[in-house]
Amino acid sequence: MLHKIKEKFSKEQLMSGNFGIEREGLRCDDRGLLSHTEHPHVFGEKLANQYITTDFSESQLELITPVRNTIDSCYKCLENIYNIAVLEIGSEYIWPQSMPCNLPNEDKIPIATFDDSEKGQEAYDYRRHLLKKYGGKKQLVSGIHYNFSFNEDLLKFLYEEMHYEGDYKDFKDDMYLKVTRNYLRYRWLIIYLLGGASVIHSTYEDETYNDALSYRNSVFGYVNDVELYPNYTNIDNYIKSIIGFVRDGCIDSPKELYSQIRLKANDNTNLLSSLKHEGISYLEYRSIDINPFDKAGVSKVDLYFMHIFNLYLLFKEEIPYTRWQEEAQQNQYNVAIYGQKNIQLLRNGEKTSKIDWAIEILDDVRNVSNQLGLDQDYIIFNMLNKVKDYKLTHAYKIMTATENEGYITAHMNLAKAYKQQAYEKRYQLQGYEDLELSTQQVIKESIKRGIDFKIMDRQENFVKLSKGDIVQYVKQATKTSLDTYVSVLIMENKAVTKQVLDDNGIPTPKGVEFVSFDDVVQGVEPFVDKAIVVKPKSTNYGLGISIFANGTSKEDILNAAEIAFRHDKTILVEEFIQGKEYRILVIGNEVAAVLHRVPANVIGDGKSNIRKLVDIKNMDPARGTGHKLPLEKIKLDDNSALFLKQSGLDFEYVPQKDEVVYLRENSNISTGGDSVDFTDKIAEKFKEIAIKAARCAGANICGVDMIIEDVTDPSSPFATIELNFNPAIHMHCYPYQGKERNIAGNVLDLLGFSTK
Amino acid sequence: MLHKIKEKFSKEQLMSGNFGIEREGLRCDDRGLLSHTEHPHVFGEKLANQYITTDFSESQLELITPVRNTIDSCYKCLENIYNIAVLEIGSEYIWPQSMPCNLPNEDKIPIATFDDSEKGQEAYDYRRHLLKKYGGKKQLVSGIHYNFSFNEDLLKFLYEEMHYEGDYKDFKDDMYLKVTRNYLRYRWLIIYLLGGASVIHSTYEDETYNDALSYRNSVFGYVNDVELYPNYTNIDNYIKSIIGFVRDGCIDSPKELYSQIRLKANDNTNLLSSLKHEGISYLEYRSIDINPFDKAGVSKVDLYFMHIFNLYLLFKEEIPYTRWQEEAQQNQYNVAIYGQKNIQLLRNGEKTSKIDWAIEILDDVRNVSNQLGLDQDYIIFNMLNKVKDYKLTHAYKIMTATENEGYITAHMNLAKAYKQQAYEKRYQLQGYEDLELSTQQVIKESIKRGIDFKIMDRQENFVKLSKGDIVQYVKQATKTSLDTYVSVLIMENKAVTKQVLDDNGIPTPKGVEFVSFDDVVQGVEPFVDKAIVVKPKSTNYGLGISIFANGTSKEDILNAAEIAFRHDKTILVEEFIQGKEYRILVIGNEVAAVLHRVPANVIGDGKSNIRKLVDIKNMDPARGTGHKLPLEKIKLDDNSALFLKQSGLDFEYVPQKDEVVYLRENSNISTGGDSVDFTDKIAEKFKEIAIKAARCAGANICGVDMIIEDVTDPSSPFATIELNFNPAIHMHCYPYQGKERNIAGNVLDLLGFSTK
Repeated sequence: MLHKIKEKFSKEQLMSGNFGIEREGLRCDDRGLLSHTEHPHVFGEKLANQYITTDFSESQLELITPVRNTIDSCYKCLENIYNIAVLEIGSEYIWPQSMPCNLPNEDKIPIATFDDSEKGQEAYDYRRHLLKKYGGKKQLVSGIHYNFSFNEDLLKFLYEEMHYEGDYKDFKDDMYLKVTRNYLRYRWLIIYLLGGASVIHSTYEDETYNDALSYRNSVFGYVNDVELYPNYTNIDNYIKSIIGFVRDGCIDSPKELYSQIRLKANDNTNLLSSLKHEGISYLEYRSIDINPFDKAGVSKVDLYFMHIFNLYLLFKEEIPYTRWQEEAQQNQYNVAIYGQKNIQLLRNGEKTSKIDWAIEILDDVRNVSNQLGLDQDYIIFNMLNKVKDYKLTHAYKIMTATENEGYITAHMNLAKAYKQQAYEKRYQLQGYEDLELSTQQVIKESIKRGIDFKIMDRQENFVKLSKGDIVQYVKQATKTSLDTYVSVLIMENKAVTKQVLDDNGIPTPKGVEFVSFDDVVQGVEPFVDKAIVVKPKSTNYGLGISIFANGTSKEDILNAAEIAFRHDKTILVEEFIQGKEYRILVIGNEVAAVLHRVPANVIGDGKSNIRKLVDIKNMDPARGTGHKLPLEKIKLDDNSALFLKQSGLDFEYVPQKDEVVYLRENSNISTGGDSVDFTDKIAEKFKEIAIKAARCAGANICGVDMIIEDVTDPSSPFATIELNFNPAIHMHCYPYQGKERNIAGNVLDLLGFSTK
Repeated sequence: MLHKIKEKFSKEQLMSGNFGIEREGLRCDDRGLLSHTEHPHVFGEKLANQYITTDFSESQLELITPVRNTIDSCYKCLENIYNIAVLEIGSEYIWPQSMPCNLPNEDKIPIATFDDSEKGQEAYDYRRHLLKKYGGKKQLVSGIHYNFSFNEDLLKFLYEEMHYEGDYKDFKDDMYLKVTRNYLRYRWLIIYLLGGASVIHSTYEDETYNDALSYRNSVFGYVNDVELYPNYTNIDNYIKSIIGFVRDGCIDSPKELYSQIRLKANDNTNLLSSLKHEGISYLEYRSIDINPFDKAGVSKVDLYFMHIFNLYLLFKEEIPYTRWQEEAQQNQYNVAIYGQKNIQLLRNGEKTSKIDWAIEILDDVRNVSNQLGLDQDYIIFNMLNKVKDYKLTHAYKIMTATENEGYITAHMNLAKAYKQQAYEKRYQLQGYEDLELSTQQVIKESIKRGIDFKIMDRQENFVKLSKGDIVQYVKQATKTSLDTYVSVLIMENKAVTKQVLDDNGIPTPKGVEFVSFDDVVQGVEPFVDKAIVVKPKSTNYGLGISIFANGTSKEDILNAAEIAFRHDKTILVEEFIQGKEYRILVIGNEVAAVLHRVPANVIGDGKSNIRKLVDIKNMDPARGTGHKLPLEKIKLDDNSALFLKQSGLDFEYVPQKDEVVYLRENSNISTGGDSVDFTDKIAEKFKEIAIKAARCAGANICGVDMIIEDVTDPSSPFATIELNFNPAIHMHCYPYQGKERNIAGNVLDLLGFSTK
């Protein structure tokens, strides 16, 4: 059978499936004390945020990935959600271990609060119930829930090949029940390999064990009052047994069954009914501790192993043994508390060395993996080493760190390092690096707000956002339903923009339009030696623009015209207004940000020529190409050659030490300019003019480019030079200098996804 | 001075000015009886339509051009307004002469009615007053009002050169008063040259004169009860004299002064005050009769002459003579009633032969014209001939026609011919032929509704429309504020469109996207010998699309892919759905039109090859290029070569007589297809699906392309293949077969310019 599967499916197909991870984590202050602050409002209503919410406690973050088809993509999602969450909790940190941080008294543990809705009230009441029944501290134990289902094509193939008698739904249920039983039998190995809760703080529990692997999976963890053993023989029996537990008052509802693995349905709010009618949809594995040594709380290696292990469990034949559940439970507790030693475990009633049995299982896993051609020897080798040397386990490592640095310091050093890493990568979204940075900001902000997102077209940065009743499509972050089509066409056409601004009494530079080079040759005279700008009529990003601030020769104007004509069939020659250029980003009725852009420039070191200095400046990791990083690499092109020529310079010129050499007049970020935030410095008047300019083009999202002599002085001369319909937002989010602005938030607010 | 002007100004500048024409015209039935129907509602509120309204009577159309800077453009406006108006009055006609058609009794003449507003009530009351004071029939006499002011640069130049003592406003007033006085002196010549009201119907007046030129300018026309001679010496005296007339009860208000020329101000509702403070803005010449031999009611030659004549009047020195106004009045009446004869006129108290004096004036006019370099000898020669031979006058010619055919028939033949001409040119707008036909439709519909229009960018077909408080920008007829930007981006991207349609349960053909030719080579196998279509991901107009309805070879698919890649970097290979393709045009919540497009085709004559047959079919005057005519010329390109090859044909093939050869699978009008209207035949269900499809892309204006096997049968198989964000409207306005649909009207309704 394994051979047949290998024939039919590629390695990628077999390594795929449906993966979703939930990761809990306590918020704490920099001294490891449990946070008493509210769940940040930026995440919106807790019940409405599908990625970032709380679990039992107000201070217990729950990070939830959407379902992904590869482990890699799922892991990246989790890392993204962690990065986003950790940067929104102010000076707090996310505690990096399953067992809690420094806890207050039981009665000071804040229960998560919810809104006034019926659902909110229910969620709150449930937490009150748990508090009463199990106590508050146990609720703060955090973990990883790994949700998994097989690639559906694989199950269908097995269904056909195995000539199963019965329908596909029954087959699927049988398969998942087999995996469940096998998982329960072998779960002690997962606890050993992935366990990381070997140390515990005195505010939680005084009793400690030197060889512990996972307090969380021990009796000190979160367990039902009575050991409950559901009937896993078939789905109907399973349902009956759960109903029995509730009837007997062992648990209040099916969701209170804290088993190491849960059967999940399509509709988990009506779990038993949905299991009965639609069958098992996926499995939720609940044994995995937070890995203190991974920012996301679980390492990719461990996730890969979980997947290969699941494939093994699917094919592993079972040996019948009546008391298998009790035995497995006992093995679990033993490994959890004494697992660092080579203890004896029970195997169908017989004692077995933990190491021998583990090696046997891993050999089997390797066999399955190899027969399926999964090519995962590295992963299995890694696990084998841990089996052979307990010092390689997460559990041993965090115990050692705690011994050396103390419980709080050891954990806080990790938490602080993870937060720092998140900050350093704050402009990037793992797995979406191919998207424009502006689009990455929108997705990040969507995750923060719990908005569902679907990439409609990667190359085009086209995203569908939905939450509740609201559906919005967004292309390149600022192409949305907020602007009308004709409003964009007005902005796209510089001559029309000017007429519209003129009609509304907003000052613009005077100019003339040319439709052919011959026309320019004939009409160029009035512009010679005047301060002018030569530009294509319809472009974005300032391509093909040449500026002659001090006037220039006929020849240079014709060269500039020639460059401009490369970008459009109509060009503009326009009065050049003295002053600095500011991008005023209007979103709705407000100015969201103001930026001054300094033209691409280099600062001399007295040795390197311009070409070399540009190469050096371009090495800055914040500079990229195609709007994927906050700044763009500087390009030396005809336009900059022409610009330098005006000062008698060329690319070979060696500037003096500290000499600033500008490489073009045009200061767009897209041509290598630097960005400086002026949002809090600009005079109110210019903001009002920018809003009016956007308004008269009918625009809701508009980059208004203005030349202003002194931006702080409302009486200063100024002119509006351009309206941009697809303004880049990343340059405001991450300016070269000044405050970072959350523009994606403004856009999402206006799109109706406000968290207020 | 004339020499200096010639040095400074070009011929074009001197021939320019500000021109506006009002033309009245009675609506009548096909037997020349005055209409009793209401002013058509398509023109909206009379007082709110600046182009098409009524004068005194409900049946008296008043056509008003906007101000234009050249005679040519002004004349074309007038012709356009005539064409638009005459095609909206059902089976009625516009009476082509100043003196009325067959009139009912005085008490049956319908006074124009207005809406309930204060302004409307005032307009109605004023007409009641006129009816009482002058009778109804006289009010039906129609004419041309020629509104004119000089090129402002010319007046400013004269002001400087003449070293006028006083400010520019006073100078301007003086100049216009001089022109006014001179015009009054020489107006008899205009009445002779342009007069065309030499015959009269018995229902109007029994008394007739054999040598009449213009009953309208005679005592049988519309004159004040008492001859009134305002003081034209300066503007203050003029104002005083008018106030005097009102005070003395000769007239009720300044607008009741029926002088042959009127001084006009910026604000004509507060005429005297505006004249006093802002000066004379322009002159309104009121002597010109309707020219029965010109559709517009006045010929371009006559308009050119009026302009040269005005320049002459500006420079002509005056000889002081006390009774000049009475003399001019007498000359007017004499020429109007006896003008066909060479009568004696009074010139400063002396009798002069009409012909000699006319020749003298025209020689002077020619001198001025030549010294200014106006190059208008043809026009002056034309007028000289009329002076020398009265048989060349409009007056003589309409008199002759009436003698031959009878009064009613002679006029109705002209009226019918004009309406027919208007119908034949119904898709074109004079002076806007360079615009796309769709944009011409929007402007025509705007004129019909009295919406102000301004071309923002000719090349881009970008128009600003405004009426009352509403301002809308429209590009290419259907790019408007009605659609959001992202809605357009959804439609532009075929893959995204499909996802959106699929998400909303609207059937689309299955397909695969390719981003490189190599990917196609690798992935082509599943499509060989299947019914497929190969197309670029993002194009309009169906460029680069190849359809293989019966499947084809790998090689042909690769060729087709290669063609598609010329138009986009991503292409789609898609299931081909059997059936006919329909364009369902959704505007707002309604289907405005449904069209089946037949692919470009030729019908054999048994002799010509395909190449020749295409040439012949392309000679149809309804076929053009670039959407400027209802249909597009057929092009023979790679795509059609490939298509023909599938049937073993090429361009040299000679089809049998009546053999239909299709030249491409794709049936877009833009690639030479034929259009057949199905709006009233399509099953309701498909309309509903089209509306839903547009709705889920968020579109208000959307060309939904559907393949339907039987369009009349709601149970017929179908699929939605494309949503178009800039649907052409002209093909629905003027289909190859079927009913013409006024789509521009639907668009303007939705833009808020409804006439309802």
